[in-house]
Amino acid sequence: MEPKQGGTVPNSLPEDVAVIDSGRSGRTGYPEVVYCRGKTTAQAEAIIVRMREEQIPVLGTRTRPALAKRILARFPDAEYDTLGQTLTIGRFCAPEDRRGLVVVVTAGTSDLPAAREAAVTAEFFGSNIALINDVGVAGIHRLFARLPEIRKARVVIAAAGMEGALAGVIAGLVSVPVIALPTSIGYGASFGGLSALLGMLNSCAPGISVVNIDNGFGAGYQANLINRR
Amino acid sequence: MEPKQGGTVPNSLPEDVAVIDSGRSGRTGYPEVVYCRGKTTAQAEAIIVRMREEQIPVLGTRTRPALAKRILARFPDAEYDTLGQTLTIGRFCAPEDRRGLVVVVTAGTSDLPAAREAAVTAEFFGSNIALINDVGVAGIHRLFARLPEIRKARVVIAAAGMEGALAGVIAGLVSVPVIALPTSIGYGASFGGLSALLGMLNSCAPGISVVNIDNGFGAGYQANLINRR
Amino acid sequence: MEPKQGGTVPNSLPEDVAVIDSGRSGRTGYPEVVYCRGKTTAQAEAIIVRMREEQIPVLGTRTRPALAKRILARFPDAEYDTLGQTLTIGRFCAPEDRRGLVVVVTAGTSDLPAAREAAVTAEFFGSNIALINDVGVAGIHRLFARLPEIRKARVVIAAAGMEGALAGVIAGLVSVPVIALPTSIGYGASFGGLSALLGMLNSCAPGISVVNIDNGFGAGYQANLINRR
Amino acid sequence: MEPKQGGTVPNSLPEDVAVIDSGRSGRTGYPEVVYCRGKTTAQAEAIIVRMREEQIPVLGTRTRPALAKRILARFPDAEYDTLGQTLTIGRFCAPEDRRGLVVVVTAGTSDLPAAREAAVTAEFFGSNIALINDVGVAGIHRLFARLPEIRKARVVIAAAGMEGALAGVIAGLVSVPVIALPTSIGYGASFGGLSALLGMLNSCAPGISVVNIDNGFGAGYQANLINRR
Amino acid sequence: MEPKQGGTVPNSLPEDVAVIDSGRSGRTGYPEVVYCRGKTTAQAEAIIVRMREEQIPVLGTRTRPALAKRILARFPDAEYDTLGQTLTIGRFCAPEDRRGLVVVVTAGTSDLPAAREAAVTAEFFGSNIALINDVGVAGIHRLFARLPEIRKARVVIAAAGMEGALAGVIAGLVSVPVIALPTSIGYGASFGGLSALLGMLNSCAPGISVVNIDNGFGAGYQANLINRR
Amino acid sequence: MEPKQGGTVPNSLPEDVAVIDSGRSGRTGYPEVVYCRGKTTAQAEAIIVRMREEQIPVLGTRTRPALAKRILARFPDAEYDTLGQTLTIGRFCAPEDRRGLVVVVTAGTSDLPAAREAAVTAEFFGSNIALINDVGVAGIHRLFARLPEIRKARVVIAAAGMEGALAGVIAGLVSVPVIALPTSIGYGASFGGLSALLGMLNSCAPGISVVNIDNGFGAGYQANLINRR
Amino acid sequence: MEPKQGGTVPNSLPEDVAVIDSGRSGRTGYPEVVYCRGKTTAQAEAIIVRMREEQIPVLGTRTRPALAKRILARFPDAEYDTLGQTLTIGRFCAPEDRRGLVVVVTAGTSDLPAAREAAVTAEFFGSNIALINDVGVAGIHRLFARLPEIRKARVVIAAAGMEGALAGVIAGLVSVPVIALPTSIGYGASFGGLSALLGMLNSCAPGISVVNIDNGFGAGYQANLINRR
Amino acid sequence: MEPKQGGTVPNSLPEDVAVIDSGRSGRTGYPEVVYCRGKTTAQAEAIIVRMREEQIPVLGTRTRPALAKRILARFPDAEYDTLGQTLTIGRFCAPEDRRGLVVVVTAGTSDLPAAREAAVTAEFFGSNIALINDVGVAGIHRLFARLPEIRKARVVIAAAGMEGALAGVIAGLVSVPVIALPTSIGYGASFGGLSALLGMLNSCAPGISVVNIDNGFGAGYQANLINRR
Repeated sequence: MEPKQGGTVPNSLPEDVAVIDSGRSGRTGYPEVVYCRGKTTAQAEAIIVRMREEQIPVLGTRTRPALAKRILARFPDAEYDTLGQTLTIGRFCAPEDRRGLVVVVTAGTSDLPAAREAAVTAEFFGSNIALINDVGVAGIHRLFARLPEIRKARVVIAAAGMEGALAGVIAGLVSVPVIALPTSIGYGASFGGLSALLGMLNSCAPGISVVNIDNGFGAGYQANLINRR
Repeated sequence: MEPKQGGTVPNSLPEDVAVIDSGRSGRTGYPEVVYCRGKTTAQAEAIIVRMREEQIPVLGTRTRPALAKRILARFPDAEYDTLGQTLTIGRFCAPEDRRGLVVVVTAGTSDLPAAREAAVTAEFFGSNIALINDVGVAGIHRLFARLPEIRKARVVIAAAGMEGALAGVIAGLVSVPVIALPTSIGYGASFGGLSALLGMLNSCAPGISVVNIDNGFGAGYQANLINRR
Repeated sequence: MEPKQGGTVPNSLPEDVAVIDSGRSGRTGYPEVVYCRGKTTAQAEAIIVRMREEQIPVLGTRTRPALAKRILARFPDAEYDTLGQTLTIGRFCAPEDRRGLVVVVTAGTSDLPAAREAAVTAEFFGSNIALINDVGVAGIHRLFARLPEIRKARVVIAAAGMEGALAGVIAGLVSVPVIALPTSIGYGASFGGLSALLGMLNSCAPGISVVNIDNGFGAGYQANLINRR
Repeated sequence: MEPKQGGTVPNSLPEDVAVIDSGRSGRTGYPEVVYCRGKTTAQAEAIIVRMREEQIPVLGTRTRPALAKRILARFPDAEYDTLGQTLTIGRFCAPEDRRGLVVVVTAGTSDLPAAREAAVTAEFFGSNIALINDVGVAGIHRLFARLPEIRKARVVIAAAGMEGALAGVIAGLVSVPVIALPTSIGYGASFGGLSALLGMLNSCAPGISVVNIDNGFGAGYQANLINRR
Repeated sequence: MEPKQGGTVPNSLPEDVAVIDSGRSGRTGYPEVVYCRGKTTAQAEAIIVRMREEQIPVLGTRTRPALAKRILARFPDAEYDTLGQTLTIGRFCAPEDRRGLVVVVTAGTSDLPAAREAAVTAEFFGSNIALINDVGVAGIHRLFARLPEIRKARVVIAAAGMEGALAGVIAGLVSVPVIALPTSIGYGASFGGLSALLGMLNSCAPGISVVNIDNGFGAGYQANLINRR
Repeated sequence: MEPKQGGTVPNSLPEDVAVIDSGRSGRTGYPEVVYCRGKTTAQAEAIIVRMREEQIPVLGTRTRPALAKRILARFPDAEYDTLGQTLTIGRFCAPEDRRGLVVVVTAGTSDLPAAREAAVTAEFFGSNIALINDVGVAGIHRLFARLPEIRKARVVIAAAGMEGALAGVIAGLVSVPVIALPTSIGYGASFGGLSALLGMLNSCAPGISVVNIDNGFGAGYQANLINRR
Repeated sequence: MEPKQGGTVPNSLPEDVAVIDSGRSGRTGYPEVVYCRGKTTAQAEAIIVRMREEQIPVLGTRTRPALAKRILARFPDAEYDTLGQTLTIGRFCAPEDRRGLVVVVTAGTSDLPAAREAAVTAEFFGSNIALINDVGVAGIHRLFARLPEIRKARVVIAAAGMEGALAGVIAGLVSVPVIALPTSIGYGASFGGLSALLGMLNSCAPGISVVNIDNGFGAGYQANLINRR
Repeated sequence: MEPKQGGTVPNSLPEDVAVIDSGRSGRTGYPEVVYCRGKTTAQAEAIIVRMREEQIPVLGTRTRPALAKRILARFPDAEYDTLGQTLTIGRFCAPEDRRGLVVVVTAGTSDLPAAREAAVTAEFFGSNIALINDVGVAGIHRLFARLPEIRKARVVIAAAGMEGALAGVIAGLVSVPVIALPTSIGYGASFGGLSALLGMLNSCAPGISVVNIDNGFGAGYQANLINRR
């Protein structure tokens, strides 16, 4: 890593970029996923290209539009969800092999980015999914109207910002595990999702476990693991 | 305040103890209240005695049992609520002059101390009160079963710790103001009631305003003000 | 929600956008409000259009100028307050049906955005309003000069950032409920309004309840509820 | 709730104590649990007695020794775990009906109270359990030595305080869901378990979801739900 | 520091206890003060004895009653203030040499311990002092009634917990420096004085500077420095 | 405040902008200052123009360059400090009437903006000033080299970010009051100046009081008050 | 782990207590240490006995006096430091094999417990140690007086609470690594050592790295590692 | 510092910019380093030019690309690392005089900027370096695969964001000091690196000390000090 004299050292050599965890499938049953934020476009692209060369199906999360555009141009079978910022290339699980149902529920429209990241992730790894939007507890009849659909789930993901009460209310109404997905929606004393996170961690309803703020990927992955167990 | 030579200076002279805000009734319509915590037993007793000498009806909050015992022994018409730690002597508002209804709702039995402080306060200042206990959102049918009673209120106080979701759910179901009373019930990431406080401040249901953690007095006072407006 | 092959999935289908809580008026007496932040321009516009189709009067909060411009172009009877970023279309309450008086008081000029959101909201839902600006406690005679006007209110909203002391001082001077509206004005240890929020929650004057930082809408809604009770 | 004249009002009448959620089994498949902290001994005992009268099997958590002693004296079939402070009376699930395996892993001996609360809970509701103690990541070979046992689990609970790294390391080594149980073990910048909680929420290994600090009950309940799904 | 074999090592040898900063007077004009908390009784006593041997006048702060009792027994000219927990032996400044006036103002009776620590400190180092108690801003006329006395001060110390608004209101009414002394009085969201501290730091009135929570000593010392400048 | 039909309401009418505290000089001896942040350019300009019409000398703080440019164009005697973002028009105190010396010391070059705001403020209100830059405690000999100059001060302002140790070290070396001015310089765990603020509040050297993070104005104002007392 | 019927289950069976990391010496060159807090007396004693059976030299930290008393009674060669609460049995490194010098410096007497834990640890693992007490930066000449001794060190440990400035000042004066050991000494805004921790992390002097609050063991261990490298 | 009439005062005169600590080499053995953030381009450039005039080798950290470009144009022997944003001119230690090995290990590619700042710093001051990327604990076999290389180090720097577990796992596997370098990588509850910082401070593995979030310079400097001790 001797910097060159009299000039600018390039960002890093290709071999520095990342160590693809090719044994991951063997250990955990699922391939690695590319978290694109914090990587330069060049780094992320290099990783994706290498994975495709090894024919690993790709799920990229937090994929900025500019990066997505490059990948879509290069891989004709790539798909990009502009709201959830997920990118997929190839299939880890064929549609006909999907099993069970993961229902993703949001408190409000602003929670859709995290919710769709969760939904795309769970589908990618082999779950059937449904997304029920905008049924927050401030108008609780909206939630009750959708309970029959929610009760079809093997696992429910509850995405909510602000006070995050949705997860606890649902957990008291269903007999399956609820994955609570706090979002950074809100302002002032929501402190970037901290309020929703704390609310969900402190829910007095059992049957809830929580992922990081805006971690739709983590929620979808865990929901799929539980669903396909 | 020249300390005495060669000895211990007494805690403070009687005239130092407190300045009774005897003009408060004129300005705000209600007499001063004695917040007993942070005062020595001698200080609190001195204040109460002086108020009774001026025939001001007394509401003492956060009254430790030992202090209450002294006051009960001295004033035969004193009343003490062991759970809410409120002490009253005399009446500010005769029972027949009470107006309207303030309903205090708790998420769980552990919220009763704050809830009863709120109820005693609202009653002392002139409201009829009802207390509905243990109807937290984790078992939401318990709340629905009591909705007809809750809907009789002119103001609702919602007392809850942990995630504090009760306030938002109620506010979406009633047409009157809700005073959210976060309690310090919980452990771990409840951070002494911070979680409930943040949840209530971030509720997406309008029609809620919030008081300090465990501030039953403040909730009851504000509810009575609104009720009797 | 099967993403399309080889391309970009649109942000979300119209039916995903939001569930208009059309039963809200029946339950709480007031229609739903559109919180525009966190929604794309397309999402917010779709919701507003649908509400107008159902002839629901619209109050939009946190409406960015670009969105407001689109709506103003489409609905000739829309009104936009550039400082408070509120947008209204149609009337929920005719001017002649307004009742009572809500006085909104600010500590300083920088608190006006939150204060005007509060004032527009209270007026929209049926209160007469007055706004008294720049009477913070650092120059307390300015506040005293306006006390006669403030004392005409049935409810006072006190908007202040920094130390948020305005709410407690006013509550000690009036006999009506005070809604404390902390704002994010300040820097350094104001921590985005946290300082004002904590100050207001800890006020030793009774008769105060608090809404979220910068939540002018919540303050105005609660004040109107109390005023029209 | 009219306080009695000239005396002390009892803590609360029996009918105030709690609303047993007897429909809970129908909705969620599992009976209610008694969280004993924050309740007086009299309140907790009254609730337990009433549940036994309705022949509901009892799981009490955070049961102080003094309360446990009273219950053990009254109910000969009660059992108490002094470390995890769980109390059980009757059986919700007979030993022969237990299914699957939940493995509870601790980073250190000090994590045992939370871990045992988790284990007792999962067993009570119908899981077989194993507890593997003191295999924290600072001596990672201890963890590897127990991997074959851990890999028999359908769900793993990872209990750890301090930096909470155990959950992420395990999640990278197994193919089943991991429930991360942060504990308040540590000092200084562990801030009562906050450090472990944040570490677990931020784990870069997928397949983790998190419960509140020291919430062994929540971890055990969720693990059983997943295990028996 | 070789620990002894087979036994308990004493807490520390006398020479370890403390390094008396005997040059402090020369550098700053004032002798060192003994902060007793965090020291064992033996350590504190050893330091005080040594200072008296060198005929340094002693001001001890945070002196527990048990320690004070020992010192009072040993030094007949020692004085102890039980409320402020200050201990003095000897005089740094004779009463006739005191100059100027420092007025210490409290928001409430519970602020007296910090206020008296401040007053005793300022007097010890050479200021005349006055203490005005219980004039918090919730009943602002009480403050105005004492303004003539407060305006005699060369420096004002404003001691307040909860929202800490007293400092800012006073600073807008006087032409001298205000030292804001936040106290840990309050509960819930006062977070041990954090709320008062933040309120005072964010005061929009100029002419305020702030010391640590409950740091009466620091306030009194700084006020005396300014007063005698 | 009736919003106009079918259009955009202007930001606020001139009479709303601000209430000039023209009695402030009488009460506190000093005129009001214009804090420009949080005000629109139009609001700030309107306030300044009105003050000049009343011939009040102007000190504007946090004056963005664009605003400064407008004012400099309009008032030929305006002065602007680009680093400290202070703007002055007219003189409150003629140079020949300045008294005493306030020395502003910085830990590093990055602290200059806050330090210069402090220096300009103290000078505007009547102090002679000196600014000693870049003498942080990491190279403590730099500080010792400047001690003779620092010791000429009647008041010292110590501006430092990061760990904020400068204030405590200076206070141990001088016999005059030190105003500690924490700055937001730093990154990571400096948390926007919180680290420096806490360090200064906790200094074990007496003779320090603290202002808000980056509050150069407050430091300079308080220093001048003390200096000219 | 099947709880026994009709009674109390013992705290845990011996085999549950802990997994002694007997391979630790091989991997890292040093044996395991017993952190006694959070363990019951029985658990800690069982671990120590087992280690002695395997002839592993014991260093116990955070050893309460009651536990120490039991161990001292059982092992005649045990040593206990009452201030630092360290317990040692046997020798890992004979005195004649100690190498280099670690100097532990404290800001004040109250920092001695953490400092002595550090010193005992470094000595146990093979360093010569010296302890220099009470040379905090508020009286910086005390530090300079001891610089010649400090400069003999190969590693310096700087123990300080409150603002924690000692570490940065020393690091600017020596050419060896400084281990910063924040302590929980202080009150109010020291927040249990957080202030010192942040100050040390933000020091602008290079050559510092930091351990957890009150983690004397960690500081001593790391210092010895560096010293003996 | 008299501001000029009728115009803008320049940012600060050259002599204000900074005090080069030219005695630093003598005291600590190493020259001063230029921390470029928080300095204007003109300020940073002036400092660098002056250092080169005195023939001091320059290490600039946090050097924005625009500043680097100016310096590279002026000094043909300057080198810039675009990822770590370090700039060097001249050599403090010739390649042939480097000693020992510092291994910098990252948890993920996003940690490279901090890691490279650390590596460049250690090399500049005289260490041989190796950088091992992307071996975070979620796929722990990647770490084990590189253990032989890591074990060649005299000091290891472990750079990780999110949960920061890498440092503790490595410290349990090596016999040399580990410098933990938390990074701000992550989102949500990583709170800008706070989660990693707390995790590293709380690691139960001894042999770790921690630097500020993203403080690659501090880590590299400390590692080199230890390595070359």
